[in-house]
Amino acid sequence: MQSATTFEGIIAYPITPFDAAQQVNIPLFTSLTERLIQSGVHALAPLGSTGVLPYLNDAEKEAVITAALQQAAGRLPVLAGVSNLTTERTVYHAKFAEKAGAAAVMIIPMSYWKLTDDEIFQHYDTVARHISIPIMAYNNPATGGVDMSPALLKRLLQIPNVTMIKESTGDVQRMHYLRRELGADVAFYNGSNPLALAAFAAGAKGWCTAAPNLIPALNTQLYHAIRNSDLPKAQHLFYQQQPLLQFIVAKGLPRAIQAGLQLRGTDGGFLRSPLQPLDDKDMRELERLMEGLG
Amino acid sequence: MQSATTFEGIIAYPITPFDAAQQVNIPLFTSLTERLIQSGVHALAPLGSTGVLPYLNDAEKEAVITAALQQAAGRLPVLAGVSNLTTERTVYHAKFAEKAGAAAVMIIPMSYWKLTDDEIFQHYDTVARHISIPIMAYNNPATGGVDMSPALLKRLLQIPNVTMIKESTGDVQRMHYLRRELGADVAFYNGSNPLALAAFAAGAKGWCTAAPNLIPALNTQLYHAIRNSDLPKAQHLFYQQQPLLQFIVAKGLPRAIQAGLQLRGTDGGFLRSPLQPLDDKDMRELERLMEGLG
Amino acid sequence: MQSATTFEGIIAYPITPFDAAQQVNIPLFTSLTERLIQSGVHALAPLGSTGVLPYLNDAEKEAVITAALQQAAGRLPVLAGVSNLTTERTVYHAKFAEKAGAAAVMIIPMSYWKLTDDEIFQHYDTVARHISIPIMAYNNPATGGVDMSPALLKRLLQIPNVTMIKESTGDVQRMHYLRRELGADVAFYNGSNPLALAAFAAGAKGWCTAAPNLIPALNTQLYHAIRNSDLPKAQHLFYQQQPLLQFIVAKGLPRAIQAGLQLRGTDGGFLRSPLQPLDDKDMRELERLMEGLG
Amino acid sequence: MQSATTFEGIIAYPITPFDAAQQVNIPLFTSLTERLIQSGVHALAPLGSTGVLPYLNDAEKEAVITAALQQAAGRLPVLAGVSNLTTERTVYHAKFAEKAGAAAVMIIPMSYWKLTDDEIFQHYDTVARHISIPIMAYNNPATGGVDMSPALLKRLLQIPNVTMIKESTGDVQRMHYLRRELGADVAFYNGSNPLALAAFAAGAKGWCTAAPNLIPALNTQLYHAIRNSDLPKAQHLFYQQQPLLQFIVAKGLPRAIQAGLQLRGTDGGFLRSPLQPLDDKDMRELERLMEGLG
Repeated sequence: MQSATTFEGIIAYPITPFDAAQQVNIPLFTSLTERLIQSGVHALAPLGSTGVLPYLNDAEKEAVITAALQQAAGRLPVLAGVSNLTTERTVYHAKFAEKAGAAAVMIIPMSYWKLTDDEIFQHYDTVARHISIPIMAYNNPATGGVDMSPALLKRLLQIPNVTMIKESTGDVQRMHYLRRELGADVAFYNGSNPLALAAFAAGAKGWCTAAPNLIPALNTQLYHAIRNSDLPKAQHLFYQQQPLLQFIVAKGLPRAIQAGLQLRGTDGGFLRSPLQPLDDKDMRELERLMEGLG
Repeated sequence: MQSATTFEGIIAYPITPFDAAQQVNIPLFTSLTERLIQSGVHALAPLGSTGVLPYLNDAEKEAVITAALQQAAGRLPVLAGVSNLTTERTVYHAKFAEKAGAAAVMIIPMSYWKLTDDEIFQHYDTVARHISIPIMAYNNPATGGVDMSPALLKRLLQIPNVTMIKESTGDVQRMHYLRRELGADVAFYNGSNPLALAAFAAGAKGWCTAAPNLIPALNTQLYHAIRNSDLPKAQHLFYQQQPLLQFIVAKGLPRAIQAGLQLRGTDGGFLRSPLQPLDDKDMRELERLMEGLG
Repeated sequence: MQSATTFEGIIAYPITPFDAAQQVNIPLFTSLTERLIQSGVHALAPLGSTGVLPYLNDAEKEAVITAALQQAAGRLPVLAGVSNLTTERTVYHAKFAEKAGAAAVMIIPMSYWKLTDDEIFQHYDTVARHISIPIMAYNNPATGGVDMSPALLKRLLQIPNVTMIKESTGDVQRMHYLRRELGADVAFYNGSNPLALAAFAAGAKGWCTAAPNLIPALNTQLYHAIRNSDLPKAQHLFYQQQPLLQFIVAKGLPRAIQAGLQLRGTDGGFLRSPLQPLDDKDMRELERLMEGLG
Repeated sequence: MQSATTFEGIIAYPITPFDAAQQVNIPLFTSLTERLIQSGVHALAPLGSTGVLPYLNDAEKEAVITAALQQAAGRLPVLAGVSNLTTERTVYHAKFAEKAGAAAVMIIPMSYWKLTDDEIFQHYDTVARHISIPIMAYNNPATGGVDMSPALLKRLLQIPNVTMIKESTGDVQRMHYLRRELGADVAFYNGSNPLALAAFAAGAKGWCTAAPNLIPALNTQLYHAIRNSDLPKAQHLFYQQQPLLQFIVAKGLPRAIQAGLQLRGTDGGFLRSPLQPLDDKDMRELERLMEGLG
């Protein structure tokens, strides 16, 4: 059995590629996942924001999780995204992921109507009571539409299997709060690419990122420089990749990663509408930023 | 055949009620809809934000639209909400609504990944090419997560059957811009309850609101005072209902309307998780605000 | 003796013009003030934001107030701006204005360090105890850096001679709150030009504005249309002037009014650095917007 | 002659203390300054935000700068704050500081009317042409009201003696941009206390802070841990002081430092109205946070 804090280092998001008819392309997903695994990352996180989770129907989500676990085959742990607007569907997918073999699930409280803190707590608590693997609570107001306060995140950690927090607000003060309130052993993760250096400096245990689809060596080397307390090297590595990290966030990860794979000579498949490919100007900019990197 | 600007006055949102098992309760929906029709409103808008559209699956959405149209039975026009994260599902539901007899569809560009202006335009354009009834473009960053600029809204009006704009930002300057850029005949609608007076003063053709579930007489009287250019009366009517309008928006329309119906002695059904009923303190506040109101 | 709510209608801001050496030009100020008085406005408000109050030293402020009162000569009431970062200087200028004959003073709680509500209350209370003319509390976070909550504004009205509120946030909901909390007789004023129509519709007693330097007839006619409850005419008048109102706010009132006077063939003097004149592109845009107006 | 990048490490802000009549207390300022110098900080920065620069008149500003330089007596460099709303007064104080012996001046573009980028550039350029000591451009929208974009900061560095940038937005991405755009040798400084660790990790050359009035040893030790690339130690030191750093920023530095000095048994003098001392609850919280800290 895996421990509650099994994730550490670089946790990579695969994209969910589509075929020309905008149907999920599982064989392509499998090969892109294998490529990530071999790049040296420490864990896989399918069906995150990069994996366009909310644009998939139930059957598609199940196919992606199944494929990721089959391909990982125990070589590295899998953190399955199971977020949904309704509590009932979140429970459904969390149970599916557990049965399929995921090491943990990641849940962002998606919102249409702004949720109260009590509603969010009850949402996590209901899911937690239906599964026995750990839950990573994921805060990302820019995509999910809900900004969980540090106080609410702290409260969520009272639920026994909510053991990890991923902060994607890009505000390093949130991490300071978590670390201070919860002690040096708390497992908090950074989900904001441009904050990679600051978050590691603040004590983040891992970095959840789509960047290893394009620059896995730079990502893992940054992690190791931090582990070795080699700050000048970490700075050097971070500033090398920082322009690219900012670009892929600014343009939207599914669009930017798909384009970057294409520039690397790897098929990244199609996007599902309304998402559209990067335009020519952005493609040239991305090409320029990737030149000479990893 | 109905004209492109068939909607005027008070356009009422029914809620989508659930049973104790959190399944959509169509008989209750039908009776709440009949109650709204008889209250004197000018149009019905099922599956708006108040109707918790994004929390329903495809079959549920179809059942609600069908029930609304059967109950309206031509007595007043029906504006069907058909918004979806993907373009394919939006087209699907728009076609369903047209076939079922809706006078128009309302579409908010829901977002997980922030959409570019081109993606939003293409989203509307694709839907528009698949139906022949008018489209109301609906801007509500607080729920949909996308804030369409006035310039983008103007661009959307180039699509032949995008003929109406609903602004729910609560910023009256957006309406000034629309009116100025598009002339006095543009059909713009207000979707922000606390802005009802200011929006009518700015020339809004209608007010899309869930309030008629609770105070239909005050809502329609405000509209008529404006039509009669009786500003003192409009002010008086507006300030009577303004505290309640603010409350139902602050607490979330599905929660607040369900609670208000209960206080009126009308069954409002159950909510679907993660949404939870108002707590006792809020119930007492709502009761106080509704006292003596129509 | 004047009543506490002596101000009603159009309250005009004169600019403070400078000579080529960036010294205050009192003779030019006097002639611009006379021009405003003859244009039919209902009151004068020297040393507001338009009058670049914070860029003047003590002697310059006194000279401007004195000149305004001498020129008004009782023909219309004068509301003198006396705001200052420190309480001591605010008291000083408020006493000066009272002795010089101002009907009331206007005070914005300027901030470098964000002030607590208690500090702001004590600031107003200290000034109020040193003078016996009424005080208009002025909320404008965009210039003053402090956003006084509606609750704080309500609290300020407990101070006996704080009898008027000017809201310049551009948020009509603030006015709804003031009117609701304080009754129909509360004297609240609008200081946001693009909100002129909405604020009058909400019941504002007056409009504090620099626009009469350029389009006094349109400004006063809008006020009269509202008083006559002629909403269609008010809409028509508002939409005529709305693009110009937005422009002068967007470009900064001192810059835009000085430029507009020049386009009208009236000497508007020079600005004091760091403020610089509008560039050519903005001048042409302003010329276009003023064509055919007032 | 001093070099353009003479400042490094901990740059300490003294407060400007007042007597019971709210007049500047120069003897107390001198003794508090001596206390700072002996605490081991690397430079002094009188008349920053902590020194309540904008609340002082011209004579008071000159007295403070003179006293700081006399007391420093060449033992450490002095960075004099000379910011003012008008360009003319900024030039005046910058020339005074140079003549008095300041190593450099710090200028924040204070704003009442929002300044254009050209106006800000011209403001700095005019000052720069009147002095020959280096200028630190200081960005702090929370106090100054102007947010200089990274692009504008880069442009300011084209002015020969603008050689240092102090960023106080608390957004580490601004520092990443500066470092990336300007190379590893750019002298950028952190002015946001809660960002101390992240800014040093990002490569900031120094930390401008009022904290050494209370915890100088922790501040300087953090700097040395970073210089030694001892990240675990830096984290440990940062998390020890982080709650206090957040508190003094949240409560306002002049108020919080004056209170903290009092708790340390050192006379911190009085504040000038409208600023008021911390209330009892905040005092007890501050006492708790300072317990056991250096």
